[in-house]
Amino acid sequence: MKKRLLVIGGVAAGPKAAAKARRCDPEMEIVVYQEEEEISYAGCGLPYYVSGVVKERRELISRTAGQFAQDGIRIQKHRRIEEIDTEKRTVSGRDLESGEVFTDRFDRLVLATGAQPIRPKIEGLDLRNVFYLRSIFDADAIVDRIRSDEIRNAVIVGGGYIGLEMAESLVQLSKKVTIVEMAPQILTLFDQDFAEILRRYLENKGVRIFTSEPIRALKGREGKVTHLQTATQEIETDAVLMGLGVRPQVELARKAGLRIGETGAIWVNERMETSVEGIYAAGDCAETTHLITGKKVWVPLGSTANKQGRVVGINVCGGEATFPGVMGTTIFKVFDFNAAKTGLGMREAEKEGFHPVQAIVRGYSRAHYYPGGKESTLKVIADRETGRILGAQAIGEGPSDKFIDVLAMALHGRMTCRELSNVDLAYAPPYSPALSPVIVAANVLLNKLEGRVEGIQASEVKERLEKAKEKVQVLDVREKEEVEEKRIPGSVWIPLGDLKKRIDELDKSKETLVHCESGLRSYKACLRLQHAGVENVKNVDGGMLCWCYDVVSDEKKR
Amino acid sequence: MKKRLLVIGGVAAGPKAAAKARRCDPEMEIVVYQEEEEISYAGCGLPYYVSGVVKERRELISRTAGQFAQDGIRIQKHRRIEEIDTEKRTVSGRDLESGEVFTDRFDRLVLATGAQPIRPKIEGLDLRNVFYLRSIFDADAIVDRIRSDEIRNAVIVGGGYIGLEMAESLVQLSKKVTIVEMAPQILTLFDQDFAEILRRYLENKGVRIFTSEPIRALKGREGKVTHLQTATQEIETDAVLMGLGVRPQVELARKAGLRIGETGAIWVNERMETSVEGIYAAGDCAETTHLITGKKVWVPLGSTANKQGRVVGINVCGGEATFPGVMGTTIFKVFDFNAAKTGLGMREAEKEGFHPVQAIVRGYSRAHYYPGGKESTLKVIADRETGRILGAQAIGEGPSDKFIDVLAMALHGRMTCRELSNVDLAYAPPYSPALSPVIVAANVLLNKLEGRVEGIQASEVKERLEKAKEKVQVLDVREKEEVEEKRIPGSVWIPLGDLKKRIDELDKSKETLVHCESGLRSYKACLRLQHAGVENVKNVDGGMLCWCYDVVSDEKKR
Repeated sequence: MKKRLLVIGGVAAGPKAAAKARRCDPEMEIVVYQEEEEISYAGCGLPYYVSGVVKERRELISRTAGQFAQDGIRIQKHRRIEEIDTEKRTVSGRDLESGEVFTDRFDRLVLATGAQPIRPKIEGLDLRNVFYLRSIFDADAIVDRIRSDEIRNAVIVGGGYIGLEMAESLVQLSKKVTIVEMAPQILTLFDQDFAEILRRYLENKGVRIFTSEPIRALKGREGKVTHLQTATQEIETDAVLMGLGVRPQVELARKAGLRIGETGAIWVNERMETSVEGIYAAGDCAETTHLITGKKVWVPLGSTANKQGRVVGINVCGGEATFPGVMGTTIFKVFDFNAAKTGLGMREAEKEGFHPVQAIVRGYSRAHYYPGGKESTLKVIADRETGRILGAQAIGEGPSDKFIDVLAMALHGRMTCRELSNVDLAYAPPYSPALSPVIVAANVLLNKLEGRVEGIQASEVKERLEKAKEKVQVLDVREKEEVEEKRIPGSVWIPLGDLKKRIDELDKSKETLVHCESGLRSYKACLRLQHAGVENVKNVDGGMLCWCYDVVSDEKKR
Repeated sequence: MKKRLLVIGGVAAGPKAAAKARRCDPEMEIVVYQEEEEISYAGCGLPYYVSGVVKERRELISRTAGQFAQDGIRIQKHRRIEEIDTEKRTVSGRDLESGEVFTDRFDRLVLATGAQPIRPKIEGLDLRNVFYLRSIFDADAIVDRIRSDEIRNAVIVGGGYIGLEMAESLVQLSKKVTIVEMAPQILTLFDQDFAEILRRYLENKGVRIFTSEPIRALKGREGKVTHLQTATQEIETDAVLMGLGVRPQVELARKAGLRIGETGAIWVNERMETSVEGIYAAGDCAETTHLITGKKVWVPLGSTANKQGRVVGINVCGGEATFPGVMGTTIFKVFDFNAAKTGLGMREAEKEGFHPVQAIVRGYSRAHYYPGGKESTLKVIADRETGRILGAQAIGEGPSDKFIDVLAMALHGRMTCRELSNVDLAYAPPYSPALSPVIVAANVLLNKLEGRVEGIQASEVKERLEKAKEKVQVLDVREKEEVEEKRIPGSVWIPLGDLKKRIDELDKSKETLVHCESGLRSYKACLRLQHAGVENVKNVDGGMLCWCYDVVSDEKKR
């Protein structure tokens, strides 16, 4: 008898698993159950459909049921699976159109039930013009309403990347946008300094941002939302987008007695098999392993879903594919900024018991003389003891995607910064400076690990200025024009070129915190100061690039 | 007594070594000897200065002698070092302006003497309007003359990447350009199929290309070049650019008794030290190790020179830095094509005793529905026995630089295609398809290594059609519009969707070579044919993307 494969879920991992299984076994019976009308669509493309960058809804659909049928894969739409009998190897469910109940048998079962938006327990969520953005139907609802003039203000609840992508979409539709985030910073996946770079950028684009603002309720009139109430204020609005993130859909699995992991997602082994033999899970409903910490994590992403779908498709046919885990690589676009991360951030690394050291450099896209260059700020983090690369973040108009991909590969290769400093990357003037910013960052890390110059984070500088101003001096070694544009209040200014002859202007009883624009000139300055016998000198990581606190500007004075 | 460091050569590796040494040792005496007026300039930027993309000559200069002086590094211009006494630890040379002879002592010496253009032994090289492109002075000469109307036609001798970059520069200056290459293909670093993609592209841009054409002589009138004579023809021209590549400048090292390596460049160990203690070499004059073959190679590149300069700068101060070697990564831009390579090509891999297998896929820059996407053709090569990735090539308007950087990192990590198929790269619709083309290629390789479907290269298909036409049939499984645009002469056309029902149209006694546009649909077709019992089926690698031979077009017939 032919083997029968049932797949529950038809968006990303499910269809991928079905298609791969078909290629591995031309004989197998394959059925995909999907609750909704649409299958095989690009969830990650929804913000761009809302903004109009993607013009047609149908462009988001990769394959239709008819195309699957050509491959002998049967798509059962509008059917919800409500129970799995792991002993009898059957599922039972309901036809959502006719209400009819049905059962089906399986030899192999794939759970690809995805994730669903987090709904906080507050009043007002059922008011009109309160939206989620998870399924293509959510997007339909937004597109249907948001383009009308009725909605002029919108509040986005949650400053994660979906919220930020939506902020761009709404600004492009000429809406006034406010982001309300419960945590002390937006984009909690990123280190605070990098999140602040993005915050300033968004504010310049006209987006209002409130952090440390948990929401309490949504208020309305005539069934339509009019206000969002936080712990400290009421914000008027015509629409609310709930972007608090998602959680894995595991009810079906839980009811069937499948093991649920510590992350709340379905537990699977490296072969993506659940705790019950012959039943697999893939995509947003399944947990996976973080390859740096070795711990179980839940990181729902379309790219991961695709890879896992392939692994499952092979294994349901008796193959031996594995999915080892993820590095936590992520990227998103907001306006012209490309924001990306891989591996651990500084705080995450500390929490995992590492002793992280960071390098922050200017991530140029091209040789300095080749026109049209763009720049991201790039941070690379390594462990002080072993020199092993732990993570990286890049943000700005430059090629953040390329930098982070290279660094994700460095993580996969378990590279140290010494190894990274000599990698053979593609160089020609239109593509990169002669020394890739990735390599420059590795060199900065090497210098730090060798203890030549100690670094200090911008946030620590700020703290010292607040707590013990009399014990520190901030030395700015930039050029005149740079300093006139903006400088840290109270800093001492001596351009690098003048430092040797003006060294006596410094108060040697104080700790000297040296900065420039990015940290390279100030590194040289630190070396010169140390050589001149000045003790207790520190280089401010990332210089003005990462200084997100008060500045004064001489231009204003004029 | 303070240590004294002499550096011979002031373009890339030399200044870098000097600057790094200064940061490592603030006391050391550092002198850089340079024959020319300019120092620390970007040799790789010269083609863009010629074309006018880089407007100002001074933009190519990274640092002036004055700036080095600020760091206590003395630049001695217009001085040629003519002898090194390795026993007495002295150098002697000549002031090129005054003619005066001088000697200088050193504790540490760095040779950064670079490379020089290859000059063939033919007549006519001293005619007017015969140019080289190596130094900034060569570029000056070209800029000075080539923009005049006097020069309307130009022949570039040599189809390497400098020649191709120059072809673009000259076409942009409205010159009629001919490339004459001795080898059977341009761009011999690349596999033939990929070189042919570029050739077709250049020909579409109006560049005439002759391959297998060794040059014999340059002919002139009134001291000016008028003809280039090859083995088979005379080509009229107003100017000739000699782009036959470069060779390392090692005369000084050889005379001093330093070991010259098998590549003809200066032998160094991992610390970049030559055969004489305390004497180092870096940049284009030194050889290095290929990290895949383990063999010594000479790959002169600005990025490598910078890395080596840093290593030498550390080591001359008593440090312990190493430069392990290169992957042969290279990239260049011609018009809107980005052409890049890392590791070994198919032929190189075979020569090194590997059993290479290739995957050729479409390298999209974005999700299919996100507008503005670009495409490169991407080839990834793995070893059949071990699955280890051996090399990659990418060519087209897409992000070849990103693909090749990711693959260079895969080579550094000694990854297999199984590992590569699960790497966690940055995905969002504006940056990549959900499955990166790198991962798609890894999956294609996995399928090949598992022997599901056998691949065949376009060149082998061509060969069989020529030698044993009656034994093979070419099956085209693309859609109508694609086939009408161009198809391989004599192919059988059955769209993939119709294959099952029309399978009897195939002659099962023949070997069936199946192709589509890129190789993915034809892969599915092969699986279906094999399942239907058709034997001797092969999938054409890269499909029409890599078919650089005759095609017929139905449009022409209309």
